[in-house]
Amino acid sequence: MRNVSLHLRFVGTQYHGWQLQKNAVTVASVLEAALLDLTGAPTRVTGCGRTDAGVHALDYVANFFTECSLPADRFSPALNARLPGDIRVLSAREEDLSFHAIADCVEKEYHYYFHLASQEDPFLRDRVYWTRQRLDRPAMEAAARAMEGTHDFAGFRSLGTPVKSTVRTVFQCVLEDRGPLLRMRVRANGFLYNMARTIAGTVLYAGQGKLGPDTIEKAFSTGDRALAGPTLPACGLYLAKALYERR
Amino acid sequence: MRNVSLHLRFVGTQYHGWQLQKNAVTVASVLEAALLDLTGAPTRVTGCGRTDAGVHALDYVANFFTECSLPADRFSPALNARLPGDIRVLSAREEDLSFHAIADCVEKEYHYYFHLASQEDPFLRDRVYWTRQRLDRPAMEAAARAMEGTHDFAGFRSLGTPVKSTVRTVFQCVLEDRGPLLRMRVRANGFLYNMARTIAGTVLYAGQGKLGPDTIEKAFSTGDRALAGPTLPACGLYLAKALYERR
Repeated sequence: MRNVSLHLRFVGTQYHGWQLQKNAVTVASVLEAALLDLTGAPTRVTGCGRTDAGVHALDYVANFFTECSLPADRFSPALNARLPGDIRVLSAREEDLSFHAIADCVEKEYHYYFHLASQEDPFLRDRVYWTRQRLDRPAMEAAARAMEGTHDFAGFRSLGTPVKSTVRTVFQCVLEDRGPLLRMRVRANGFLYNMARTIAGTVLYAGQGKLGPDTIEKAFSTGDRALAGPTLPACGLYLAKALYERR
Repeated sequence: MRNVSLHLRFVGTQYHGWQLQKNAVTVASVLEAALLDLTGAPTRVTGCGRTDAGVHALDYVANFFTECSLPADRFSPALNARLPGDIRVLSAREEDLSFHAIADCVEKEYHYYFHLASQEDPFLRDRVYWTRQRLDRPAMEAAARAMEGTHDFAGFRSLGTPVKSTVRTVFQCVLEDRGPLLRMRVRANGFLYNMARTIAGTVLYAGQGKLGPDTIEKAFSTGDRALAGPTLPACGLYLAKALYERR
């Protein structure tokens, strides 16, 4: 038995997220169909995290066990030939049998793209979050900075699968100009359900003058979801990186 | 009766080009349906040029006659509310009754995007022409320069609607780095059917060492379509600008 990891890049628009679901096309289900076709055996893939419907990935890590004898570097072209064009395998490699794409992940980085313009750009549709509102950039920067550190993010998530702890450490949360876009880049040791989109919504609300650092502090201390900003649309969110200690 | 011009931006992927066709969804047909819904009257739009299926537009000009009394600046939001998200009206304005989007157009600019990379990027799918081949950049520059000037472009087109003359003046044809992409920018007083895509194919062939300035010269003098490069895929082509003398 071998353990193979994949780095994937996908446009999330056409998928109901990463995770397998009944009666829904997901990235994992399409990938498993390609692996079945390639290896002849039903194969279950483990991803580095759930992504919601419409969320994109620049570099998503997954792993699977197989008895297929294909050299590791041949998996990329063989799978790409069997996958739709909106999902690409960037690379594949052999891992220790113990490697687990989600359990071993020590850091993830998400990007959230804001398009601040009077008109929506059809070429950016489903790829960014567009708003014509004028935003207070220093207030957004302050809100982003307030996310950094170890906090109880119970007030910055949607309810989903129960988790043992809602404490996470945000290593970095910054705003960066990317041409006509404003990018929020957030790195953490883990993200609760919808946490990245809620952080983006909180930064947006700060830019609209609807909340300040005090409210964010109170959201941390009380866990009251009503204090933080809204969960922004999935289309602006990109899983950019998943890091592992060893490998 | 009023004559209104529109500036449009559209992603061409889902459309069979600009021009009305039977049994095919085109940008013009979708725009005319939106105008019918808005004005209550069947309205015919005139575009600044045919674009093929899959070709995009950054700033396409069209005009139409209407008896609708809506102020010119209200057409954009009213039409955008009735158009799919991959077609956007950037602006609208009142024109002289004599204004004609194609007859009065004195210059058009097209962009062709090459993505030179070992792997296709799913986020650029249907938006650029991807090739993993290494290309000779100076040879491509020389081929682009050879296009400039007044030439008989009979050898650089596909057969379509008959035209009076196949002589056109290319004002500029240059290559520009745009991040990970290579952009060919070509400006001319007019383009024959598939001419922009054939110029792009000729520049590509030059980069692959398959033809040089001598062959291009011979293609101009003989009109032999077999000498120039291939008609590259529509997905890499963008109508970037349409210019008018007066207005």
